[in-house]
Parts: sequence; C-alpha cells; structure tokens
Amino acid sequence: MQERDLDALVVIGPDGLGAANTAFTYFTGGAHVTNGTIVVKRDGSAYLVYAPMERDEAAKTGLGLISASNYKMPEIIQQFKGDRLAARVEYTRRLFNDLGVSGRVGFYGADSVGSTFSFLAALSRADAMRVEVVTEYENDVISQARKTKDAQEVAQIRQACKLTEGVIGETQDYLRRYRVADDTLLKQDGAPLTIADVKSFIRREEAAAGLDDAGCIFAIGRDAGVPHSSGTPTDPIRLGQTIVFDIFPRLIGGYYADITRAWCLGHASDEVLAAYELVMKVHDDVAVAFDTQRFTYEFQDMACDIFEAHGHRTIRQDLSVTNGYVHSLGHGFGLDIHEAPGMGMKGMRADDRLLPGTVITNEPGLYYPDKGWGIRVEDDYWCDPAGQFECLTCFDRSLIVPM
Amino acid sequence: MQERDLDALVVIGPDGLGAANTAFTYFTGGAHVTNGTIVVKRDGSAYLVYAPMERDEAAKTGLGLISASNYKMPEIIQQFKGDRLAARVEYTRRLFNDLGVSGRVGFYGADSVGSTFSFLAALSRADAMRVEVVTEYENDVISQARKTKDAQEVAQIRQACKLTEGVIGETQDYLRRYRVADDTLLKQDGAPLTIADVKSFIRREEAAAGLDDAGCIFAIGRDAGVPHSSGTPTDPIRLGQTIVFDIFPRLIGGYYADITRAWCLGHASDEVLAAYELVMKVHDDVAVAFDTQRFTYEFQDMACDIFEAHGHRTIRQDLSVTNGYVHSLGHGFGLDIHEAPGMGMKGMRADDRLLPGTVITNEPGLYYPDKGWGIRVEDDYWCDPAGQFECLTCFDRSLIVPM
Repeated sequence: MQERDLDALVVIGPDGLGAANTAFTYFTGGAHVTNGTIVVKRDGSAYLVYAPMERDEAAKTGLGLISASNYKMPEIIQQFKGDRLAARVEYTRRLFNDLGVSGRVGFYGADSVGSTFSFLAALSRADAMRVEVVTEYENDVISQARKTKDAQEVAQIRQACKLTEGVIGETQDYLRRYRVADDTLLKQDGAPLTIADVKSFIRREEAAAGLDDAGCIFAIGRDAGVPHSSGTPTDPIRLGQTIVFDIFPRLIGGYYADITRAWCLGHASDEVLAAYELVMKVHDDVAVAFDTQRFTYEFQDMACDIFEAHGHRTIRQDLSVTNGYVHSLGHGFGLDIHEAPGMGMKGMRADDRLLPGTVITNEPGLYYPDKGWGIRVEDDYWCDPAGQFECLTCFDRSLIVPM
Repeated sequence: MQERDLDALVVIGPDGLGAANTAFTYFTGGAHVTNGTIVVKRDGSAYLVYAPMERDEAAKTGLGLISASNYKMPEIIQQFKGDRLAARVEYTRRLFNDLGVSGRVGFYGADSVGSTFSFLAALSRADAMRVEVVTEYENDVISQARKTKDAQEVAQIRQACKLTEGVIGETQDYLRRYRVADDTLLKQDGAPLTIADVKSFIRREEAAAGLDDAGCIFAIGRDAGVPHSSGTPTDPIRLGQTIVFDIFPRLIGGYYADITRAWCLGHASDEVLAAYELVMKVHDDVAVAFDTQRFTYEFQDMACDIFEAHGHRTIRQDLSVTNGYVHSLGHGFGLDIHEAPGMGMKGMRADDRLLPGTVITNEPGLYYPDKGWGIRVEDDYWCDPAGQFECLTCFDRSLIVPM
C-alpha cells in the first residue's frame, strides 16, 4: 500500500459471486460470507461490513466487524427517492467518515461491470467525498500479494493436491473394474461406459473427498486433441485411445489443485507413445530448469524449442495453430485457477518470474485432433523460500493403464 | 435495446468467474466457455469471441464464432510495449471495427473492479473509438430480460427443484437411520452424528443427482436462530432441537433451486410448534395473495402485519432486529440465487411486481437465537403466462420428523 501510495483498500463483495470473488475470499478465509465490504487502512486495521443475518460467519473472519444495519440503507434510499446509486454513494460516504478513510483509495474485488463502473464513476464525481478513486489494471496490490503463497496457503494447496490425487486414483480403479468387449468398456447392462458416466463418478468422488468440482475435462480420442474440450458426454470409453483427464477442484470455497494425466487404456499406438515420451521430456527438462532468476517466457521458449526440433508446430510460430503444441507451458494458481505468474510467450507479461512462494503448473502437451489424439501431463510446483522447486503432485504419470 | 437506445451490448467473460458470471452464461448456455466476449448488435446478430483451445465448447453456444487469435493479442501487446490496458483498447477497436459496432454500447457481465473501471475509462477516453460507453446500475437490460423466465428456463428450474427435493428426502431418510441415545443421534462407533457428517452426506447426494453444491445451510438449535449461519461443523444432531435446512444447489453451471425445511427430530416444544404454525400461516396467506398487480413490498408488509399482531418484532420496526422476523419474504432466482424481483421492504425497490414469468421464493421465518431456536420454510413459485402462481416445490413441510 505504501509503495502504491494508497491510504486504504476497499474490497467489494457483492451478493452472488461467492467463492469466485477471490480478492474478497482472500480476506474472509473459509467463512461463508456471501456479501459485504472489506476496508483495509494503511495502519493495517481491517474491517468487514456485514449483513446482520451473517453475523456468525462474519465473526469467523477475524476482521473488525461493522454491521451494515448501522447505516440504515432503506432510509437512505428513501431519502434519495429510490435512486439506489446515489444512496450507495451516500452510504459509502458515511462509512468512510466513520472509519476515517480519505485520500487515495484503491478498489478491488469483483462485481458486475455495470455496477462497478456506474458506482466508481459516481464516487469520483461526488463532491461530498474526499477520496481519490484508484483502480489498477491487473497486477494490482492484492494480486501482487497473492502471487506468493505463505506456509498456510501452501499447506492448503498441498491438501487440495492430495485429495485430488485420491480422486484420480479412484477414477483409474473404477475404469479398471469394467469388462471389455471389442475394445469398449461395458456396463453391467451391456451398454458402453461413457464420458458422462465417468464424470458423474468423478463428481461424486470429489464431493466425498470434500472438494468443490469446477468442471473437469475427461476427453477421449479426437476431443483429447482439443485442449479445453471438456469431453463429449455420449462418447464410449475405448481401449487404445488417448484420454486427457484434467481435474482442477478446490477445497470447499478455498484453494485449487490442478493436475492432468494422459491415459491410454490397455495399449497405445507407436505415434502416441512417441508423443507421450516427448511431452514427458519437455515436462522434465523445464522442471529441472525452473529457477527464480529467469523470466517465465524462457521456459515456454524451451518447450517450443524442443517441440519444434522434433517437427511439431507450436503457438510461438502461429497463434492459431491447432495441431502441435498450442498453449502456454503453465500458470500460477491459488484461490483462482489461473493466477500470476503467467508462463506464456515473451511480451505477454514481460516481468513474470518464479519468485519464492509462487505455485505454478507445468503442463506441456501435444494435440492432433485430426489424427484423433491429444496428450497433456500437468503437475504442480511450489518454489520454497530458499528458491528450491518442489513438485506437489506425484500421482503415477504412466500413459498406459493396464486393464 | 431499442428502448434504452443501445446500438450494441458487450458481455465480458473474463477467465476465472465461470458460472458466477451469469450475464455471460445467460448467452453461452450450458457450454463450458471459461473466457470470451459476447457482442450483440441491434439487428439481433450475436457473436462470441473465443479462445481457440475452447472452440468445441464455443460451437455449442449457437453464437456466431470469432476466434480471438484473429486479433493477435501478443503482437498488439508488443506494439504497445507491454502496456496490456492500451493493448486491450486497441484489440477492442479492431474487433468493433470488424463487427461494425459503433454508437452507444452497453457493457455487461462481471469482472474484477480494477479491470472494469480501468478498461472502460480508457475506452471512453480513446479517440480512436467511435463508441459511447454505457453502463447501467442494477436493473440493466440483461437483468430485465432475465427477470421473467421462458418455458425452457422454467423447465430447468423445475428439474433443479425436483432433484433438490430428492436430496432433501435422502437426507431425511439418512437421519432416521441413526440410533438415538440421550436424545443424540449416534454413529456406529458411538460418536455423535455431527453437522459436518450431514453436510458431507448432502454434498455427495447433490453430486450423485448432478447438482452443483453452493454451500447449504444445515444449522441446529441456536444456529438455526441466525438465518445465514451455515451451521457449526462439530454440533451434534439432537432430538427436539430446531434444524434449519436451506439447500440451494444449481444444475451444473445452470439454474438454481432454493428450498428450506425446518425440522425437529422426534419432538418439539410447544413454543416451537406455535412458531412453526405461525410461519406456515404467513407462508400460506402470502402465497394465496400473490398476484401480478401488487408491489412485492405489500407481501412483505402482510408478513410483518401477521408476525407483529402475534407479538413478534420485525425488521420493518427495526433494521437491526435479531429476535423475531428478521429478513425479506423472498427473492427472485434463476441463474443467480438472488435475482430481481426483490421482496423486501417498501422503498428498497419500489417498482418490483410479480410479473408473468417471474420465479420467486416464499420464505418467512422466526428466529430466537437467545432461546436456542429458529424456523424457516421456503418454497419456490412460478407466475405462469396467464398470471397464475404455481408452487414448484412440494416436499413435505412437516416440522416433526418421526424417528
């Protein structure tokens, strides 16, 4: 705050966004506060303005507590003849006055575009306010703080990874329990086991493990060749086809894990086996090269170098490439599934480094939808305070799942 | 759009908000598009700018498709020497130019406060843009459209309600399976069944039913007396105490249901029985009175009239009341758990009526945390095109659960 000359931070927590409003949940922790406003002053004091109905949940946050009912919003709305925007400005004026907030105030959190722009524009114009509205485009002071994880955050990410690996293992065991005819997994009634069946199993396992499902990818064959295809529900599970299983649940309302395994049930073609070996070479080579001094785009370049040397097209050569290596090497994650630092191409985010405390994915892949296959292997890494990289995920990376 | 003199709508779909960005999912439907931009022109044509990796999911939306890779963002960022905000303005200029977007453009969707305000302010200032940035504070053109649900939306809400009632039934059966000693439900190992155990069961049942958990309330005794207390995980489940079970899952990435039952296992005190009867009287009286001509605050007034006549304090008398009737009668819902119309006090949203197509909750309650109990009964209603109100939820409303 000092560095950016901010006198206060205000984190908006509108109703409806829930855990998706991660700047807000960063301050409220695991408490189920569905709406409110957080004010952090330069002296370090931090307050939550909460709805009286949520007083129990608000108390769990450890923040200074201010009941929204003190400000009598219905009366203010009547005073402003139903103009809810003018009423919100007046409500904010009273709150800032009570808390002694003035000067440069940074605004954070998420909200609807219309609410944010109309409110902050009105606040900027309001004569009665003695504040300068400050907003930052990306890489703001809260994102900056969240870029590095403390011990407590890493412990939660470890827990999310461990539980997620449990679900991956259960899913593999589940697949192996089915009988096979004509290379197709069959249910007891003789119908093929489908992507929809597997996803339903995964969701139940996540729930049993205490994880929030965020919509996993379980895609087979051609769909595995389209990185963010989530899979076709009716597709049967067949031997010898590539499966991309990308699972990224979170602790309930909390930190994510993000793991991908590429599987072929029973057997794989020589072409796929060779591609898998190359993806693993990239995966291992960049992991060994991770350090705190280099820019993250250097690792993406390293991945592109290797793939291109083996004759694959890459996104570095052509942004619209669909056959080859078609995405970034990885990304930071935490309360959001995609956070700083980015690990994409040079120039996109020039100053990103893997500083101590960062948690990132390493997820090279090769995609050939036209040939009916795709491969991605993704693990999570933490850079410890000494600058050493630890892999947080160790589930077996083998391609072939013996049936 | 015509009424508000808008030449185009732009719905922003930033990475990370997922299903919480409901203005975006309103247009993308069930497709798993994690980021993109939707542009709707006054002639009705609608486009999705999508990431190439998500082309399969994008195709499911039925929108006109434009690959983001056409605009070569990395090159633009380099052209602007890493200034990502300036690059986004230029990217938007090129997109609007290609689509023929100019004039008054309304912006919708959700995003971080910093991104929204910085971007729209920069767009407003940009000389090269020939657009007037329009934002609406609440009740915007998309919220307005979403206020009334069409047949397809109601069918999905019905499905969510039916599945949710299934989970409520399974939960009741689950509780009844436990043996009881000293009025406490006991697990096989002799330890008390806890709120945490029950919530874990509920989450597994939701997953099995194909519902996304949104964090239900299962609160007993004193916690049931605090409307949004989600329940204390370690609390044992005991006979004779009030349980407030408020469950509001959604179809995966889709429409919500919102149902509350108040239960006493085995038996209830006379005081609680009388309170339950009164809550049900309010619930039934307002449901019979629902019509399309009256303001929604009239139903809240009706509830307050009845509760006050029976000696209970209400939020109409005192905003900070914690013992008595302490919240609004209900709310609209759909893709968001709280949508227009509101059903709170006069003046808060003066023009809300229950128009044909609205879907609302009816959820009166009485709360006495100091006495260790709370009651709320919540059902969902749809106003059909003829203006008739249909209750969408019919799970048994009895207080006492025989054990």
